[in-house]
Amino acid sequence: MNLRKATPADVPQLYNLVMELAVYEKAPEQVSNTPEMMLRDGFGDNPLYGVIVAEADDKIVGMSLYYFRYSTWKGKRLYLEDLIVTESYRGKGLGKALFDATIEEAHRTHCTGMMWQVLDWNTPAIEFYKTYGTRFDTEWWNGHLDF
Amino acid sequence: MNLRKATPADVPQLYNLVMELAVYEKAPEQVSNTPEMMLRDGFGDNPLYGVIVAEADDKIVGMSLYYFRYSTWKGKRLYLEDLIVTESYRGKGLGKALFDATIEEAHRTHCTGMMWQVLDWNTPAIEFYKTYGTRFDTEWWNGHLDF
Repeated sequence: MNLRKATPADVPQLYNLVMELAVYEKAPEQVSNTPEMMLRDGFGDNPLYGVIVAEADDKIVGMSLYYFRYSTWKGKRLYLEDLIVTESYRGKGLGKALFDATIEEAHRTHCTGMMWQVLDWNTPAIEFYKTYGTRFDTEWWNGHLDF
Repeated sequence: MNLRKATPADVPQLYNLVMELAVYEKAPEQVSNTPEMMLRDGFGDNPLYGVIVAEADDKIVGMSLYYFRYSTWKGKRLYLEDLIVTESYRGKGLGKALFDATIEEAHRTHCTGMMWQVLDWNTPAIEFYKTYGTRFDTEWWNGHLDF
């Protein structure tokens, strides 16, 4: 297993992982993003996100996709948008390796901490994050407007 | 009432609004941010956030503080971190003017939509956002690690 930063050539495989997670989260119909948009948004002059990929057997089997946010309470934060390991490679420590590498990236980029969200029924994810001492805030509602 | 982008000279007043909201949200002890950090993070070469301020009677009485996020499902999103109107100026339409200006900013910067969070007990805010047709997702938990 090898961890490295993603390159533009990886985008089709990254998009497949995004879709795999959307199916797991029971909302594939909510995905309006495309590989073309991901390429433009993540690999130009002002990338909107970064990706650490996990490779095994000559293919991408997991990723951590993150970007930076700003908390008016805490300052610069790394936000972990997606931590995904493809189904057939779960249970081998890849998720932990990716999460640890993401924590390192947050330190390296001078963040005061990191943040993420998890669905309330995703018990395996919640239990995994609790091993890091994470406590969860459950009192926030997410609003959005789509244009 | 006048709306404009914030300047570095506004930071002390912006910080006061952040603290006012933190007290309203019953968590002022969670604020480790400082005016010095806000100045560095929002007004350098790669600002981590933007602010629209509302001025009245020669002072700043409200603000919308936002930044850009990346949704692997939806693409580029404007995230509204804080929408604040100081207590003595509420009920005059300033919040709506700031929110409308933020929507305009999201369009101008080619976002596919905008997002924000609200505390589940903050009924006035929830009712306000519902007038825009907002529906809220309540099934996500927020995790974080502080360094």
